[in-house]
Amino acid sequence: MIQLKNDTFLRALQRQPVDYTPIWMMRQAGRYLPEYRASRARAGSFMDLCMNPELACEVTLQPLERFPLDAAILFSDILTVPDAMGLGLYFTEGEGPHFERPVRTREDVRRLGVPDMATDLGYVMDAVSLIRRELDGRAPLIGFAGSPWTLATYMVEGGGSKAFARSKAMMFDQPDLMHELLAVVAEAVTQYLNAQVASGAQALMIFDTWGGSLTPRDYRDFSLAYMARIVAGLTREAEGRKVPVILFTKGGGQWLEAMAASGCDALGIDWTTDLADARQRVGSRVALQGNMDPCLLYASPDRIRAEAAAILASYGPGTGHVFNLGHGIHPDVEPDHAAALVEAVHELSRPYHGGVGG
Amino acid sequence: MIQLKNDTFLRALQRQPVDYTPIWMMRQAGRYLPEYRASRARAGSFMDLCMNPELACEVTLQPLERFPLDAAILFSDILTVPDAMGLGLYFTEGEGPHFERPVRTREDVRRLGVPDMATDLGYVMDAVSLIRRELDGRAPLIGFAGSPWTLATYMVEGGGSKAFARSKAMMFDQPDLMHELLAVVAEAVTQYLNAQVASGAQALMIFDTWGGSLTPRDYRDFSLAYMARIVAGLTREAEGRKVPVILFTKGGGQWLEAMAASGCDALGIDWTTDLADARQRVGSRVALQGNMDPCLLYASPDRIRAEAAAILASYGPGTGHVFNLGHGIHPDVEPDHAAALVEAVHELSRPYHGGVGG
Repeated sequence: MIQLKNDTFLRALQRQPVDYTPIWMMRQAGRYLPEYRASRARAGSFMDLCMNPELACEVTLQPLERFPLDAAILFSDILTVPDAMGLGLYFTEGEGPHFERPVRTREDVRRLGVPDMATDLGYVMDAVSLIRRELDGRAPLIGFAGSPWTLATYMVEGGGSKAFARSKAMMFDQPDLMHELLAVVAEAVTQYLNAQVASGAQALMIFDTWGGSLTPRDYRDFSLAYMARIVAGLTREAEGRKVPVILFTKGGGQWLEAMAASGCDALGIDWTTDLADARQRVGSRVALQGNMDPCLLYASPDRIRAEAAAILASYGPGTGHVFNLGHGIHPDVEPDHAAALVEAVHELSRPYHGGVGG
Repeated sequence: MIQLKNDTFLRALQRQPVDYTPIWMMRQAGRYLPEYRASRARAGSFMDLCMNPELACEVTLQPLERFPLDAAILFSDILTVPDAMGLGLYFTEGEGPHFERPVRTREDVRRLGVPDMATDLGYVMDAVSLIRRELDGRAPLIGFAGSPWTLATYMVEGGGSKAFARSKAMMFDQPDLMHELLAVVAEAVTQYLNAQVASGAQALMIFDTWGGSLTPRDYRDFSLAYMARIVAGLTREAEGRKVPVILFTKGGGQWLEAMAASGCDALGIDWTTDLADARQRVGSRVALQGNMDPCLLYASPDRIRAEAAAILASYGPGTGHVFNLGHGIHPDVEPDHAAALVEAVHELSRPYHGGVGG
């Protein structure tokens, strides 16, 4: 087994002492990098890129070639799971994802089954194995999936949505049917994440992009409950090491206490919550990952550095913080600005861990 | 002066005893009503409708003809103010608002002045006067404006935006320039709202649609500070009666305490915050307006009634609650569903005010 040369990210997630605050960036393998755009052009469509293990590996590693990031994250899409459930995923330029066969009726829900991870989603597992090999221990690899509620909105709407008219109507008028849908998706996601761990993922993250569109009651019953069910079903140790799980609900700042009680190891925090407040509310139970406004990367490197300092100060001394953006990096950000952030976090965080820096 | 026959809304905003919980719905004059679509077709463009006082009056009153609503709200758009500042507002079908002359440079900001309310925005004041006359005391009339931060995002971006790249870059890299812009917009909004009161508006609401996209620190400094400045400059009494002010930041559920300290009379609450929690946090200082998920109106009338009951129970006994949606009514809602909501709130709320009902 290849020795992990940098386990700072995994240690911070378990709130073990570290020398500096680790950093990675959501969507760090993405359109803001010219080398990504080149790989994407070679692949053809976005899904072709996701489904080609060699190219998925290539783009996963690109940001780590540029910046000394403390984690890699599998390049993929949250909609691979519903696609493997037979919904027929395709992307249109500028309009985002669509499903050929959306889930609208009881019969549609009953027809759904848990896909076979080795065959239906084998291309993802091949990518994970290949990335682990190519990473060569430089940094840990994060596997991920969408939350059941988030996936269900796409499955019922047949694509992206602003108002969630159909999915919420199903939730309100046919709650049993929505629960049936969420249960099968949760089971599929559990197996999917466990297969990623079996293939080499060293940490896991569940992205609940649309949980923040719910009332507190509906969030608890239709989103958090299913994420907690997944967490309870996950392989939590692999290769003799804990596999930490990060839960991220965009816009979930009001529900951190409930999220922290889900059994996860860390919470993703968006920029609308102050990290000092978040730590006070839940910090002794879980680690925190976040939380710079991704728009800060539009600002000058000096301003980015000042903001990194402010966020590190907000979290304060000690371990349990993974620096990240509060959401994915925007496609029109200058790569040099991302570099300035990574450098600033590594340098300015050392004093918070008993070291000298800044 | 025409006697106000139904002052339940105004009394609830001042936390005075009422017989039932008043209700109105954000965007209640809108596309979900066939009669609105007919008026809109006669007007031509959306802006033609806003700028024609007779038609603006007509559509303002349409929902009150259908439903026993407890307040009317001026039909207009928050972007009338930047339009009057010379930015050249136009709408494209399906794409929303645009400005011909966005605000990008220091010179652009310096060029801005407070518009003349009687001439540049006379059409709004004419609409307010006409609506008051035609309302004939049936219900109070709400005047409104956008928050300075929200208006500034449109002015800098040149239209709607998802990421606020330019406006946030200005905020981060040229905070003084953004403050200069916000100051002139705040002055314009103050005069605009006061002119609406002088023309007959009996309550005021400030819509901060995009304040929720900010960090807690940036929200306080770049959005809330300017709303507080506006509140401090408003005419708070007219026709021998208090003119209550409602502050609404979409996605601002984490900041209710700070909002309540702004000097306003009531807070708009979206559906991501539990009303019982909100009341406990700020309820003795301000009234609360909200907070049904607008997607509930896609559900059956029975389900709508159950949700109205749950929200009324969540607020609990006593005055200080104005029922509303947590955001504007969706254009594809059945008008009968809105009717079911209004009826349910009126009927089911009486026991919470010492009456018999439900």
